[in-house]
Amino acid sequence: MNYSKESLELHKKKQGKLEIQSTFPMETTDDLSIAYTPGVAEPCRVIAADKSRAWDLTIKGRSVAVITDGSAVLGLGNIGPEAGLPVMEGKAILFKHFANIDAYPICLDTQDVDEIVQAVKWIAPGFGGINLEDISAPRCFEIERRLIEELDIPVMHDDQHGTAVVVLAGLINALKVVGKKIDEVKVVVCGAGSGGMGVADLLFHAGLKHMDMIDSRGMIALGRDGMNPYKDELAAQINPDGRTGTLAQALNGADVFIGVSQPGLVDEEMARSMAAQPIIFALANPVPEIMPEVAHKAGVAVIATGRSDFPNQVNNVLAFPGIFKGVLEARIKTITPAMLVAAATALSKMVPEPTSHKILPSPFDPGVADVVAEAVKRAAVV
Amino acid sequence: MNYSKESLELHKKKQGKLEIQSTFPMETTDDLSIAYTPGVAEPCRVIAADKSRAWDLTIKGRSVAVITDGSAVLGLGNIGPEAGLPVMEGKAILFKHFANIDAYPICLDTQDVDEIVQAVKWIAPGFGGINLEDISAPRCFEIERRLIEELDIPVMHDDQHGTAVVVLAGLINALKVVGKKIDEVKVVVCGAGSGGMGVADLLFHAGLKHMDMIDSRGMIALGRDGMNPYKDELAAQINPDGRTGTLAQALNGADVFIGVSQPGLVDEEMARSMAAQPIIFALANPVPEIMPEVAHKAGVAVIATGRSDFPNQVNNVLAFPGIFKGVLEARIKTITPAMLVAAATALSKMVPEPTSHKILPSPFDPGVADVVAEAVKRAAVV
Repeated sequence: MNYSKESLELHKKKQGKLEIQSTFPMETTDDLSIAYTPGVAEPCRVIAADKSRAWDLTIKGRSVAVITDGSAVLGLGNIGPEAGLPVMEGKAILFKHFANIDAYPICLDTQDVDEIVQAVKWIAPGFGGINLEDISAPRCFEIERRLIEELDIPVMHDDQHGTAVVVLAGLINALKVVGKKIDEVKVVVCGAGSGGMGVADLLFHAGLKHMDMIDSRGMIALGRDGMNPYKDELAAQINPDGRTGTLAQALNGADVFIGVSQPGLVDEEMARSMAAQPIIFALANPVPEIMPEVAHKAGVAVIATGRSDFPNQVNNVLAFPGIFKGVLEARIKTITPAMLVAAATALSKMVPEPTSHKILPSPFDPGVADVVAEAVKRAAVV
Repeated sequence: MNYSKESLELHKKKQGKLEIQSTFPMETTDDLSIAYTPGVAEPCRVIAADKSRAWDLTIKGRSVAVITDGSAVLGLGNIGPEAGLPVMEGKAILFKHFANIDAYPICLDTQDVDEIVQAVKWIAPGFGGINLEDISAPRCFEIERRLIEELDIPVMHDDQHGTAVVVLAGLINALKVVGKKIDEVKVVVCGAGSGGMGVADLLFHAGLKHMDMIDSRGMIALGRDGMNPYKDELAAQINPDGRTGTLAQALNGADVFIGVSQPGLVDEEMARSMAAQPIIFALANPVPEIMPEVAHKAGVAVIATGRSDFPNQVNNVLAFPGIFKGVLEARIKTITPAMLVAAATALSKMVPEPTSHKILPSPFDPGVADVVAEAVKRAAVV
């Protein structure tokens, strides 16, 4: 199927993918008087007396703003807020389909960190949560951190943490398949943008000890060109000796490669140089860092990609609907790493006997969002 | 029926009145690949190359942001953005029901004019139009004016112009009933907030020559206490001699009273002092400036209110869905007074033989929004 052609036709025919519905039929003057004036004054009064009642009397309690500035949309780069809208609409319908959450796209006409933070704070009263989407690194880190500090509703940058949860879930099962332990393996993460930094952070919270992080200039190291405060912080942790090296050098002897970078960066020889029973997550989309058939030829034990036409698809939709479902239902104000690790662990357990071709559930498996939501809620009360 | 009780129960049971839907079924991995990655990249690319394509490939072309700061919600006053949400949700479902427009409530956590203007400008890329709602006067006038100047999508403050269109439609027919002409009658408008100023402005565009405007201190006049630049501008036009006077004095001999003010300001004696065959629009809600039975006793020829339980309900829902339908369909950037007069005239013609008890169509009459939309579009090409 030609997805590009089909997608363009769908968007034209339907004028996008989202619409608004009323939760109740409105057929008579009485219906109008209940939904609107004069009846509507009563829920307004109740909320005016106690703001928290907006959670159960309005859409707020089941709504998420999907916020972008259009600066890092898919693999397309900085295409602006209007051009990002189809992706944000897609996100919104995934929220609805998989978790019955009502999400609305907000595409911002600014790419300034302070202004984005301010805009989100101003529109926050009507929403129960904030999903940041396709905002380029390193701006996304500061935006997320400040919004978490300054808002009283949960904020998550899905490119970082949604990706990280699904990668961790898959990695837990891939390690089972090859009989290795997370605190013993060496992982190479390639790509120090939002996805790579989110993955690195979560893997450490899940017990990982050994990691190299590679960006377009090689291994990250304090004092190297092309660093930023976020890379500095990570480099201080994983590379205190200031080692340098290429992706090929880092992969030599590594157990796991996680690419959130560029098509074709890993060749057969590089894959062969990894430790026995290597695991590869080649998540560049639509063309992965190494194609599955090449990886298998090189003896890779488990290969995952971002694509639906290969086994082991790493798809954020396994994570974000359930994470927000959990935090909205329990009115959790801050999403913690412990919640994300719990979500990943719960996801991994949905495949009780993982194999090299099946390390993750399908988004269409029944109950995925509920399993994730329950794990998040349990982690919140620990 | 106890609308307050019914409304509160509805809001509790349904957790508000709005929800998001997908415009197409999403059941398979292929559906996911079309609606989301990788297929969605194609509409993104098309819009990145030509921003205007967002109008036909996304929700933008049929979407309106319903914006409030919660400063003047219904008759409840400054109850804040969260408490305003039930009204904004109501507005959104009216947009959907009556014009198939997808509107989303944005409740702003600021009441500063500059900040509101800035917030709306930042979120504008994803919307096809801006409906300002329940923002207190006189801030609403500057906010609307600046947004009209600075945005490339239509902006309308419904409390001003939606009200004005329906009042003008009703007045055209009421004048027919009593056999008077708009350029000959004297109108007293009571209430110099958003509704009153919007009505005053539109009536002059429709040919009215004689008006007194009354606020809580009496007749507006240059140099009087409690004026603002907007009242000054109107006073310079309608009261160049600086007359002063009370509501009762202004009503003496007037042909038309239009109240967008407070319950019970007009008594039977004041109504009796008006010219022969007087017309009263008593739009304070839920308790009008004068009750219909009192007005009739005083010999009033036509009485309209804001209520659905009396004849001649002046209801904004007759206007705003069709106005936005027209401007969105024709991609009109600015809503002009000529379009609003055309909308009112078209609405009035939906009652071909008006009587004292029937000067306006019902919102549930088929085709109201289409009639208004077509009138707006025709006025745009004149």
